[in-house]
Amino acid sequence: MHTFRVWAPTPQKVELAILQQRIPMAREEDGWWSVEMPSLAAASDYGFLLDEEGPFPDPRSPYQPRGVEGLSRTIAHDNFVWSDTDWQAPPFSSAVIYELHIGTFTPRGTFSAAIEKLDHLVELGVTHIELMPVNEFSGDHGWGYDGVGLYAPHHAYGSPESLKRLVEACHRKGLAVILDVVYNHFGPVGNYWGKFAPYQKNNFATPWGPAINFDDAYSDEVRRFFCDNALMWLRDYHFDGLRLDALHAIVDNSARPFIEQLAEKVLNLERLVGRKLVLIAENDLNDPRLLWPRSQGGYALHAHWNDDFHHSLHAVLTGENRGYYADFGTLANLAKALQNAYVYDGRYSPFRKRRQGRAPTGLDGSHFLAYLQNHDQIGNRALGERSGKLMSMGRMKIAAALVFTSPFLPMLFQGEEWGATTPFLYFSDHRDPKLAAAVREGRRREFPSFAGKANEIPDPQAPETFEKSKLNWDELSQPQHKEFLEWHKKLIRLRRASPRLASGRMEDVVVRFDEDARWLIVERGDWTIACNLGTKNLSAPLRKGKHKLVAVSDAGISLELPTVSLPPDTVGILKQLG
Amino acid sequence: MHTFRVWAPTPQKVELAILQQRIPMAREEDGWWSVEMPSLAAASDYGFLLDEEGPFPDPRSPYQPRGVEGLSRTIAHDNFVWSDTDWQAPPFSSAVIYELHIGTFTPRGTFSAAIEKLDHLVELGVTHIELMPVNEFSGDHGWGYDGVGLYAPHHAYGSPESLKRLVEACHRKGLAVILDVVYNHFGPVGNYWGKFAPYQKNNFATPWGPAINFDDAYSDEVRRFFCDNALMWLRDYHFDGLRLDALHAIVDNSARPFIEQLAEKVLNLERLVGRKLVLIAENDLNDPRLLWPRSQGGYALHAHWNDDFHHSLHAVLTGENRGYYADFGTLANLAKALQNAYVYDGRYSPFRKRRQGRAPTGLDGSHFLAYLQNHDQIGNRALGERSGKLMSMGRMKIAAALVFTSPFLPMLFQGEEWGATTPFLYFSDHRDPKLAAAVREGRRREFPSFAGKANEIPDPQAPETFEKSKLNWDELSQPQHKEFLEWHKKLIRLRRASPRLASGRMEDVVVRFDEDARWLIVERGDWTIACNLGTKNLSAPLRKGKHKLVAVSDAGISLELPTVSLPPDTVGILKQLG
Repeated sequence: MHTFRVWAPTPQKVELAILQQRIPMAREEDGWWSVEMPSLAAASDYGFLLDEEGPFPDPRSPYQPRGVEGLSRTIAHDNFVWSDTDWQAPPFSSAVIYELHIGTFTPRGTFSAAIEKLDHLVELGVTHIELMPVNEFSGDHGWGYDGVGLYAPHHAYGSPESLKRLVEACHRKGLAVILDVVYNHFGPVGNYWGKFAPYQKNNFATPWGPAINFDDAYSDEVRRFFCDNALMWLRDYHFDGLRLDALHAIVDNSARPFIEQLAEKVLNLERLVGRKLVLIAENDLNDPRLLWPRSQGGYALHAHWNDDFHHSLHAVLTGENRGYYADFGTLANLAKALQNAYVYDGRYSPFRKRRQGRAPTGLDGSHFLAYLQNHDQIGNRALGERSGKLMSMGRMKIAAALVFTSPFLPMLFQGEEWGATTPFLYFSDHRDPKLAAAVREGRRREFPSFAGKANEIPDPQAPETFEKSKLNWDELSQPQHKEFLEWHKKLIRLRRASPRLASGRMEDVVVRFDEDARWLIVERGDWTIACNLGTKNLSAPLRKGKHKLVAVSDAGISLELPTVSLPPDTVGILKQLG
Repeated sequence: MHTFRVWAPTPQKVELAILQQRIPMAREEDGWWSVEMPSLAAASDYGFLLDEEGPFPDPRSPYQPRGVEGLSRTIAHDNFVWSDTDWQAPPFSSAVIYELHIGTFTPRGTFSAAIEKLDHLVELGVTHIELMPVNEFSGDHGWGYDGVGLYAPHHAYGSPESLKRLVEACHRKGLAVILDVVYNHFGPVGNYWGKFAPYQKNNFATPWGPAINFDDAYSDEVRRFFCDNALMWLRDYHFDGLRLDALHAIVDNSARPFIEQLAEKVLNLERLVGRKLVLIAENDLNDPRLLWPRSQGGYALHAHWNDDFHHSLHAVLTGENRGYYADFGTLANLAKALQNAYVYDGRYSPFRKRRQGRAPTGLDGSHFLAYLQNHDQIGNRALGERSGKLMSMGRMKIAAALVFTSPFLPMLFQGEEWGATTPFLYFSDHRDPKLAAAVREGRRREFPSFAGKANEIPDPQAPETFEKSKLNWDELSQPQHKEFLEWHKKLIRLRRASPRLASGRMEDVVVRFDEDARWLIVERGDWTIACNLGTKNLSAPLRKGKHKLVAVSDAGISLELPTVSLPPDTVGILKQLG
């Protein structure tokens, strides 16, 4: 016996389309429809007819083997036998996070192929993997943020079962897995949900489509759709947490905001399953309310991506000053990011032309993710260049040293650990020629600095744009990549062995710098991270006492107490003795 | 020497138009323009030319003697000599509030005419007057919510000086004055502000026009425009507080919301001027965050209008169950409103088709305004009927008894105290024939229950619609009105003399009721308010002990311990002795 249920208050008639049959469904209360089917194959394809139109896929489809427009397929989560009993994720407050995109992480681009690379991550010292969205989206490849079938693992990545095998394999190796979910809009292709119910708002548009209806009529069920989605990934796929995409694009004026409700539901599930679960936000507003405890009127999310740290670091190291990097570029800003998480904590932002953010009072550094790179910061560049194309290897090492000795949770983007040279481009696979053309043209118009040479911008729809973005694991056999990987391993080992370095105490961070001579020294208790970003040799004075060089990015670094001597573009990490 | 300044980042050129001259203005930082004029008459008319277009009025015009489209006129606030030195408003937590509309409160409809009626309010026992918006709006008469010149007192009500005289006269008589301000949209006529700067959002519309830009580029100055407006009324006009219209129509995703900022600015001014200042919200979301203290992540406003109380009371007394009254109508709901302020504190609202509100935990009743009538609840009816047209005089007395013995801050709407029979209709005075027609038609379409007889709905643009809405003070000489006025005076005296009745302790409120027999008894400490809403005589049992009847709405009420006997549609207020 299988019960099909669907929430569809909008149509007058709903039928189940299955096995070449049309089976009338009965309207329940609150706009739900249901029908019971006896003796069904474990995996049966189905859809819903709404007022004679369709069949359309199930908004809660667990699997879309033929893509967003195809029929939905039943799956039985209970049939999967998990071997990760008693799994507990490593403590999130000392996490080392690794963001990856299933489609480009491996040549095959599948869940099962990713399993083969887990040992590499374990050896690197990663504790938490963060998967870019794996929900069903338009076409065979894409970033995943234009998801439609939010309950279905993307068909090109493998089956629901193979995603479970991946999570299970991670757990077997001690790796926690966080999933990126998009609760601020639906993708443009295959989005039939408006025919079922008012999922979307008609008075507010995000940059990517109509906003989700979290506070108007029928929003209780819309909220349930998203809350249940979160709970499904955490419960049925054993994910250890979620990354909530672009929360700033949610408009919700209700007395009980959706984000707060979601966090409470996840907390309840955590108590039920007896595993720690985490929620990480993307937050373009520097809004600490997301992180504040409930007693202070906050939503008690665990952490959020901190772009201010990224932008400070990137702008200092590359000298880039276009677009949002115009708000950054000084060592003073980088120092502020290291000590305060936010550079813009209520300050006027020239780029935004308004004040931005709010002081993160009372929050420690483990509430903020720090990174030199992520999918957005690379992929939102016209040419998808990684940092290695934009700065010297010396600076790459400085960046890594600052990320991994910061009071924040460090995050790497796939391949960053070896200095991968492959780009991470914006790619899509829309089958509708009009939409494909619009995406292509839209991408070209996005970069004013490419005026007159827009044809240099890779076509998101071209298959080679996707192919080029795949990691080239062969690079790992080359000496310079090996060496850079070892640098990351060393930094991660240092961090994981030192409670002081891994601590989130921002108030312990002392930063000295010289804006003109371009040096910056970070002190955290007995640790000193000395960076020479200038063009001359630097003799950096150390605090009184004995120090030893624990890690050097360059053989030319030498300790001549009471100073450490650093050639240009180098970093030395020292520990005070006794 | 007079300095003219205007914030206008949008145009390339700004000129001051004054005395038949065009005087170039100099661009300052941040989009401000300024010019100094020597030896100017105290009241000079001026405007601004933007890129050769105009002249347009000043967005911060202090006076628009010829309406929203005319030139602005300078005034010198410092020249007014105030006589209300050392004024302190009565404590807000035990306020008795009286809402009035300057244009219809008196036959002349002016600030100075209102002064003549203040003694009536003092004798009634009012402590706080709340003026419907007095900002400059389209035409000579209207409700005022489509304000454009937010810094200018409406020209038809009198001069800025005469508004000051009104506030001063109130203070002389011990009355505090609160002003209704609209910070969620601009009116459609005379709104040239978009030519000066991005005051409005282009991705969100309120029901009345584009939303205000509180969180996008340039929003710092937009916020300052509204904050300065609030401070001006409180500082330069000596208002004692503001009523913030329709806060639910503000969309503001920033880390530091405008409302919080405004409340902080007002608190700073309060410290500066040494007078208590209050902020009252209109809040259609039952959102206690507006009221929570800052330490709990709230905005610390002093109170908000509580429509749940109104709707509960109105629906029970009238039996009306259309529109939003469908969510109300039971004595259980009325009892919940009396004990919890909100009926919808997270409960599902059938009318809204979603959950509504949040428990007002930790807040006492003095944070909520209670009323049987207000301008909206009367004027948003097709025929603008006051409660007296919808229920018996006995029920009117019951309503008043419940309002004035409630743990909330009671509010009356002008004339309610004597049971005024004049309607309060929706009226406007738009001079543009197209807009006039649109308003007329819009009003007719607003009421589905008037389908086929829409011509019965008074035309908002007809002068008689405005005239009919004026209070008829001659009614006060008629016995039934005199008697009803005395009922209000008695209730207010009782409340003001009893710390228990005036207290906001909702947890002290005990309510017993019988949904079928339609009686309801409220107990507050030694007070008992017994209401018979049924069709039969009621013998209501009292708690053990001696009671005395302190106020009866009907001579047929008698005390026969241990019960009180009440004819249908009556209320008795009893006090326990010893």
